[in-house]
Amino acid sequence: AFRGKHNERSVLFADLSADEYLQVRDYMINQKNLNISTNAITKPSGNFLFLIDLSLPKKADALGYLDEDKPKPVREATAVVFYGTRGYIKEYVVGPLPNPEYHRDVTLERYKEELPINARTVTIGEYVLLFKFLKEEVFTKLEKIVRESFNVTKENVLNAFEGMPRGVQSGDRHTWISFFRDMSGMYIHPVGFEVLIDHKSTNASLWHVTKLLYNGQYFSSVDDLIKKYEAGNVKKIVYKPIQNYASLKPRSKPTGLSPQQFYAQGKRYSVKNNHVMYLDWSFAFGLSSLTGMRVFDVRFKGERILYELSVQEAMSVYGSITPGMMLTKFLDTSIGIGRFAHELVRGVDCPYAATYIDTYRYIDISAPQRFRNSICVFEHNTGRPLRRHFSDFFHNSYGGMVNSALVFRTITAIGNYDYLWDFIFYQSGSVEAKVHATGYISSSFKVEGNLRYGHQVAENTIGNIHTHFINFKVDLDVRGINNVFQTKDMKYVNVSLPWMPERYAMIPQLVEAQLKTEKEAALRYNTRIPRYLHIASNQTNRWGHQRSYRLQVVSFTGDHLPESEPEERSMSWARYKVAITKHKDLEQTSSSLYSQNNMWKPAVDFSKYIEDNENIENEDLVAWITTGFLHIPHAEDIPNTVTVGNGGGVILRPHNYFDEDPSIQSPDGVFISPG
Amino acid sequence: AFRGKHNERSVLFADLSADEYLQVRDYMINQKNLNISTNAITKPSGNFLFLIDLSLPKKADALGYLDEDKPKPVREATAVVFYGTRGYIKEYVVGPLPNPEYHRDVTLERYKEELPINARTVTIGEYVLLFKFLKEEVFTKLEKIVRESFNVTKENVLNAFEGMPRGVQSGDRHTWISFFRDMSGMYIHPVGFEVLIDHKSTNASLWHVTKLLYNGQYFSSVDDLIKKYEAGNVKKIVYKPIQNYASLKPRSKPTGLSPQQFYAQGKRYSVKNNHVMYLDWSFAFGLSSLTGMRVFDVRFKGERILYELSVQEAMSVYGSITPGMMLTKFLDTSIGIGRFAHELVRGVDCPYAATYIDTYRYIDISAPQRFRNSICVFEHNTGRPLRRHFSDFFHNSYGGMVNSALVFRTITAIGNYDYLWDFIFYQSGSVEAKVHATGYISSSFKVEGNLRYGHQVAENTIGNIHTHFINFKVDLDVRGINNVFQTKDMKYVNVSLPWMPERYAMIPQLVEAQLKTEKEAALRYNTRIPRYLHIASNQTNRWGHQRSYRLQVVSFTGDHLPESEPEERSMSWARYKVAITKHKDLEQTSSSLYSQNNMWKPAVDFSKYIEDNENIENEDLVAWITTGFLHIPHAEDIPNTVTVGNGGGVILRPHNYFDEDPSIQSPDGVFISPG
Ligand SMILES: [Ca+2]
Ligand SMILES: [Ca+2]
Ligand SMILES: [Ca+2]
Ligand SMILES: [Ca+2]
Ligand SMILES: [Cu+2]
Ligand SMILES: [Cu+2]
Repeated sequence: AFRGKHNERSVLFADLSADEYLQVRDYMINQKNLNISTNAITKPSGNFLFLIDLSLPKKADALGYLDEDKPKPVREATAVVFYGTRGYIKEYVVGPLPNPEYHRDVTLERYKEELPINARTVTIGEYVLLFKFLKEEVFTKLEKIVRESFNVTKENVLNAFEGMPRGVQSGDRHTWISFFRDMSGMYIHPVGFEVLIDHKSTNASLWHVTKLLYNGQYFSSVDDLIKKYEAGNVKKIVYKPIQNYASLKPRSKPTGLSPQQFYAQGKRYSVKNNHVMYLDWSFAFGLSSLTGMRVFDVRFKGERILYELSVQEAMSVYGSITPGMMLTKFLDTSIGIGRFAHELVRGVDCPYAATYIDTYRYIDISAPQRFRNSICVFEHNTGRPLRRHFSDFFHNSYGGMVNSALVFRTITAIGNYDYLWDFIFYQSGSVEAKVHATGYISSSFKVEGNLRYGHQVAENTIGNIHTHFINFKVDLDVRGINNVFQTKDMKYVNVSLPWMPERYAMIPQLVEAQLKTEKEAALRYNTRIPRYLHIASNQTNRWGHQRSYRLQVVSFTGDHLPESEPEERSMSWARYKVAITKHKDLEQTSSSLYSQNNMWKPAVDFSKYIEDNENIENEDLVAWITTGFLHIPHAEDIPNTVTVGNGGGVILRPHNYFDEDPSIQSPDGVFISPG
Repeated sequence: AFRGKHNERSVLFADLSADEYLQVRDYMINQKNLNISTNAITKPSGNFLFLIDLSLPKKADALGYLDEDKPKPVREATAVVFYGTRGYIKEYVVGPLPNPEYHRDVTLERYKEELPINARTVTIGEYVLLFKFLKEEVFTKLEKIVRESFNVTKENVLNAFEGMPRGVQSGDRHTWISFFRDMSGMYIHPVGFEVLIDHKSTNASLWHVTKLLYNGQYFSSVDDLIKKYEAGNVKKIVYKPIQNYASLKPRSKPTGLSPQQFYAQGKRYSVKNNHVMYLDWSFAFGLSSLTGMRVFDVRFKGERILYELSVQEAMSVYGSITPGMMLTKFLDTSIGIGRFAHELVRGVDCPYAATYIDTYRYIDISAPQRFRNSICVFEHNTGRPLRRHFSDFFHNSYGGMVNSALVFRTITAIGNYDYLWDFIFYQSGSVEAKVHATGYISSSFKVEGNLRYGHQVAENTIGNIHTHFINFKVDLDVRGINNVFQTKDMKYVNVSLPWMPERYAMIPQLVEAQLKTEKEAALRYNTRIPRYLHIASNQTNRWGHQRSYRLQVVSFTGDHLPESEPEERSMSWARYKVAITKHKDLEQTSSSLYSQNNMWKPAVDFSKYIEDNENIENEDLVAWITTGFLHIPHAEDIPNTVTVGNGGGVILRPHNYFDEDPSIQSPDGVFISPG
């Protein structure tokens, strides 16, 4: 039922295979002068090969190969090494695959400065030491207090959840760790105990506890807490067992299956390697361990619409009176969004009949890891017409077609939260990028003053107010790479009526503008933004209008962060609902792996892409789209936030791109006339 | 699979049956002193029984019956008579049904003033005369011109499309009629010929042509056009046959069925009379000929959430240089939204397996009419989880459930446009009201200057810029009728960090407010509106928070109309994204049957509901929600506008209404743990 042939060239964008990860890993180990370890629990003091991921080809090279039969770009990997012995991080490009022969330090090229070691993600190796430290320096020493307060014994522990960023200035690695009951869904079981650990040194023997919070009261040291507790100067928390309200176990027996979708006449899409075909659509796909899901070379009827559509970043800022959440600003790419694309559950995460695809990753590990069924692809009947018209006047007839579309999906469970990522391909030529949030909220222990930062949602538990900001990269190429950015809107104009000129009326007119520079086209969230935004070609359609795709953003965002805050630079993309930049291979992402732990001097500050205020007329344009929602948690977030209403996205819609709606060509069209 | 029993009392809200319509009709005919005709083509000079519709019970009476075993309110109808002989319109309440014994003139009670006859909808009877007038006074006289220009002959005609309002001041009935090729989808085949007819008099022999537009040139009379045409002073339109680009006939053969949804284990909902049950949900429904689809007494687990959720109005303002569209401002309720709820096509408009319900109406007709399968109800698997969480830390497990929800739908094809109306009932306790637009755009002939008002979308055809504004009435009753209106939002506050008090940071705090009066709670579209809006009870949930439902509006509206325009009063509801009023039985609707043709002195001016600025604390509150989108037509609107991205709505979400997410009780929950 599908048209055309798979494009073998799509492998250009394919993630590295298990073999390729091994080739890169082994090549890197063999560079003896680099002195790299691949032990999965390498200590911060060692040199750790943290990440291997596809290094994307330069766009010009890729287009040459795809469109002009130029040679296939060399396949290369990015390798990230945390040099604990040297105090810095290096990014290398390693190639050519499959038999690497070279590595090139691209750190300065990509980030314009060296990457300090404390900008690194906390590795499993560091967590092992942190947990050991907590056990020895906190829980063992506080044995009586944690037993009386939280029932911590040899058998029973508490679970940790970290606040981020880790401090207040560049170089800090100073983390508030909050403790939660050791239950499933622990994120909504705070116990009221938080510890501030300085783990700045790569030498774990220099780590120390600098503060503790117990039931809302601060202590300068473990001993200080013990002393005051013994002296009766602490308002004690008395352990009480609790039913696990966070459990996701169903409380009702199944009483009949919900409706199911099936392919009565087979699938109308096909997946081969990393290439998908669906009716008139085709695209290549990949899953970056850091930024997550992405598609390339998206074509409709063979014509490229998008060079790239990708998830870039998921950011949240929290409010709290408790220190673990007070400063918390999560930048998920620094931990890895794609990293947490786990197996999808058939019939819940995606329909039973979907196609499930395995992915392979190499991040914070010693060998490539397979993630079974971590991408799903399916055609979905939305249960709604894509278009229809019934006429009972003049020409009595009915024409319509159901809205059946292809969904490309991953779900990433990054700690407490699960983000559902969908790219949807409609038969009308639209592509939608959508995100929904679900999973557990982050919470804090109820202490005085914390109701200013959220609602109580469970026993002693505050669901803290927070934002969700999501950034997508949308590299539309509308009839080639040379495009302009247009806005359209309405305005009322007082017009004399031609047939009674003395009479005036306010009539809506079309207002169009072409924005000239990156700064003009950086559309801030708190400003009046024209209602229609277009990436357009100077080529016109049959009716003389510039062919374009419109960007329709669906968003319920809060306020990202005042720009006065030093951390804001790490999330400066969130200032803009839509920002248009001139494409550069070196501006591949709006965020970076190194942003979370060095928010004050982030390796990527998106606003700098705009600062040079380049001309954007007849250039290769990239749209960076920010969406999300303000989340004021409420009781119904227990146990899990639901997806209904908790999302956002962008619809990319043809607007004079075609000469008419392409869905009129769909095999799904229905026409009924009398007699 | 469904729970509970059907509520027989829901018939309180049921539309009139065919028998009941007849009872009312016959009772009215028998009132000889009223001198009413029920002939479907009664002339404007006669007295015509235009409409019979359910007269809703007073809310207090209905609640008494539903909740307190008080007597069943008397069943009554509203009957609308256009008195051509007397120059006014009357609304009567007729009762009791099934054997009417009385009629009561409620015109003044409901509208505070008499309704002038020219506020009436144009009836079939008037259209018959208008078409006759056009034939005799325009087409016959212009025989040569319309033949040469448009191929109009005895066999070939043109079709008419009217602009509204009909004039520029109260009392006017002065309509620009534009002509279109006699093809299916004629709305996008303008020929460049428009005629202004004064049909103010109820005596059709006094009607006259006051202006004509031919190919962008105005003429003061038919003779004027003939004279100038013959003299060669007219830029002629030369008839050319054209392929029907408006046809909805598929151009491809079906090549495999799209995915279908089925109920593997039967339906989990049940419909009896006008009552629907679905898992924990139940509601009564009806379809007003004027305002359209509505539900009442919506309950979750037996507890009423909504007294009423209903469509109120669909409004569009157009821009054009041509007179037919220049002043056009459609108010669909005045023509009848529910009136055009026609048969739904299985497998396109709703899934094959949906339940289809017939409706009966009496509007502009002589006997009640049955509309087969004009409502559909179905459970829809959205293909997405309602919630899910996967944990690979600490407690490895998975919990989730698919988002399967009940959809209640009608589709109304009002001339060119089709609106798809959905009320969706989610297992998490949310209700969504959603509207999508599809069908044909309105268009105008391409003449100089018209590109300021839209894009060319087909041969000689401009798709005119216009707005879509939709109003919903949301009468939430949160734990009874006494509610308050709350807003919540975030704000950044500079806070000293408790563990290092010399250091400050901007932290998001929760800001809550309770609005006191109707004027405070009338939230204008062009103002900064708090992000969370709640109808709340003073009753608290388990965690001490006021139980509430949040209103989350999804909207892409343009600008409704400057308030300086006299027509604005007829659409003053569109000023507000959300407006809260104190419930009154006499403020049943935000618009009226009489608004379109008397926009300057509308029978209902919604802003007056707010003008008395009543207190809204601990009162029965009604939320009036405005959504919609700005439509700048483009080539892909040909032949039909697609639903993707062309809609809006409101999600009603529990917010501390429950003590936890009720979907945890769903039989659809899935839990997976290792081993
Ligand atoms: Ca730039
Ligand atoms: Ca581009
Ligand atoms: Ca009032
Ligand atoms: Ca109410
Ligand atoms: Cu959240
Ligand atoms: Cu429209």
